[in-house]
Amino acid sequence: MRRNIQTMQSRVASLGARLRPHVKTAKCIPIARMQQAAGAAGITVSTLKEAEQFFDAGFDDILYAVCVTPNKLDTVLDLLRRGCRLKVVVDSVTGAQAVARKSQAAGIAIPTVIEIDTDGHRAGVKPEAEVLIDIGRALHDGGAQLYGVMTHAGASYAENTTAGLQRIAEQERSLCVRAAERLRAAGLPCPEVSVGSTPTALSARSLEGVTEVRAGVYVFHDLVMCNVGVCTPQDVALSVLATVIGHHVEKGWVLVDAGWMAMSRDRGTQAQAVDWGYGAVCQVDGSLMPDWLMSGANQEHGIVSRRDGAIPGDLAQVFPIGSQLRLLPNHACATAAQFSDYRVLGPDAEPRTWERFNGW
Amino acid sequence: MRRNIQTMQSRVASLGARLRPHVKTAKCIPIARMQQAAGAAGITVSTLKEAEQFFDAGFDDILYAVCVTPNKLDTVLDLLRRGCRLKVVVDSVTGAQAVARKSQAAGIAIPTVIEIDTDGHRAGVKPEAEVLIDIGRALHDGGAQLYGVMTHAGASYAENTTAGLQRIAEQERSLCVRAAERLRAAGLPCPEVSVGSTPTALSARSLEGVTEVRAGVYVFHDLVMCNVGVCTPQDVALSVLATVIGHHVEKGWVLVDAGWMAMSRDRGTQAQAVDWGYGAVCQVDGSLMPDWLMSGANQEHGIVSRRDGAIPGDLAQVFPIGSQLRLLPNHACATAAQFSDYRVLGPDAEPRTWERFNGW
Repeated sequence: MRRNIQTMQSRVASLGARLRPHVKTAKCIPIARMQQAAGAAGITVSTLKEAEQFFDAGFDDILYAVCVTPNKLDTVLDLLRRGCRLKVVVDSVTGAQAVARKSQAAGIAIPTVIEIDTDGHRAGVKPEAEVLIDIGRALHDGGAQLYGVMTHAGASYAENTTAGLQRIAEQERSLCVRAAERLRAAGLPCPEVSVGSTPTALSARSLEGVTEVRAGVYVFHDLVMCNVGVCTPQDVALSVLATVIGHHVEKGWVLVDAGWMAMSRDRGTQAQAVDWGYGAVCQVDGSLMPDWLMSGANQEHGIVSRRDGAIPGDLAQVFPIGSQLRLLPNHACATAAQFSDYRVLGPDAEPRTWERFNGW
Repeated sequence: MRRNIQTMQSRVASLGARLRPHVKTAKCIPIARMQQAAGAAGITVSTLKEAEQFFDAGFDDILYAVCVTPNKLDTVLDLLRRGCRLKVVVDSVTGAQAVARKSQAAGIAIPTVIEIDTDGHRAGVKPEAEVLIDIGRALHDGGAQLYGVMTHAGASYAENTTAGLQRIAEQERSLCVRAAERLRAAGLPCPEVSVGSTPTALSARSLEGVTEVRAGVYVFHDLVMCNVGVCTPQDVALSVLATVIGHHVEKGWVLVDAGWMAMSRDRGTQAQAVDWGYGAVCQVDGSLMPDWLMSGANQEHGIVSRRDGAIPGDLAQVFPIGSQLRLLPNHACATAAQFSDYRVLGPDAEPRTWERFNGW
């Protein structure tokens, strides 16, 4: 994890941008502090609970990167009044008007970022859309603080070549910068240009015009990121320690006490080049057993079997009851969310526990 | 939920068996108390944390229905010493020997149930396997308490006709009873015969020879159970309240603030007759909108769209930003696990909060 943090920080800094890590992956104060110590500037959150928890822990520069709704603006105002430099996001005139009205009513110009759609993946307005300027005006003229534009190239998860990743990264950069330029050309302020996803952040060749990069899952990495091509299994810093509870010898199944409750139901590698089922299998020391995978999952039962479907005769000897395995996750954000704390293996080999939180 | 509890309790009682609800679905003390008040005898758990939490809340008759491993036996002994009538499960001679050795060493005969495989679904020994008697002897002669046999017809989830469900239920019953008879014929005790799953419990026509039935998800029901055919969407007692955060008008998408973090990544209806994506869409009052579904999910973003792919022109009017929807889960166990408490809508319409717990 330390190496992952350092790699991302160096990369973004070398391209001249600030890094604003997305803390939704780990939801863990000590981990965010390590990111901050490495040079991160502010954090990104996916819920207002994250904003509250991290602000209470001393993080005061926070971007809440999911479009805000009217029923959440009282919590936003509360955080702003307490000194949090919170930024919210909108992608519609309706949303902008709600923020502007709340700003006026409260006498606090809520810092607001406009979400730009650079790949048709999810939310945001197209950089060339007329409504972009309308949203900017609704914010700026309505009493909110137009803080900038942001985008997330979710489509990068579908790439798995350097050329493809570089293309999406450049598309993300250039279209978000274009949106900022259009706002500025209309006489509106747009100081911040925020882009990011782990795949594009690790692939971009230029961040010209970009002020900050957001990325989250890189802190742990996972099997989906391995398939995308931005890490290897050796970089994956999150695993689930499971114990063998039995065997189904005729089927070649090793049963372990980690099911989907531990791994999550995320099957993110299903449509990728290498399908890892519910997870990759390692020995306790982290050595990958590439011929094996977690092929099935019930709530508290996992099924480990060979990728090629072969049925070894010595299953119960190789994986005796009570022995342990380390399982790597498809999607670190989803697997981590199944736990309330991390057992941390530090350089001194002294295990310790770091809390995380969940919920809203 | 009250009706679901009553229906299951009446059904199992009418067939002459006790009901031992599986509390892994809700992990909620007040809900288990409602099941107990309705007539349940004991509870089933999937983790030792559940055993500890429910024992601390006054539940003392507990079956831990996942094969136990040597590294968990100290916790088991601790619960037994504190007065918990805990039963553990094994399905191998190795597992049985470990429990017997621990029983002898502690001077406490650990009550142990042998898991029977009645459908090839997961764990357990075949009812006709010679090793069944070996396991029984290893327990009984080794110093543990051979308490009975148990099975779970996980294959019932793949059925969707009354005839198919009745067939699996009868297979589950008859093969588990057969295992008990074989143990008894070998001179071993086998007082308990425990079977169950929600689909078979609601479909069995006879429970002859069965002493208790285990079922869990019926307490909430879900879309998977609707497809199996043992409930309707109106029976689903768990939903996620989401707020509209935006639209992708050209794609016909309504974006809501509930993604997979709220719904879970469970896609249990994917291979069933009706695929509900990540969930069914209801109005706030619970009225199903059958033409809509949650077709996509990111961590904190859900995509709601029409099942037929049509792109309504009035999307933003029908689903205005800030309006709310109620989403029904594919799999109640998985969705509930994403939350730390339930907002309970009682008969008096006074919302209250009931805690649940997660983790191990």
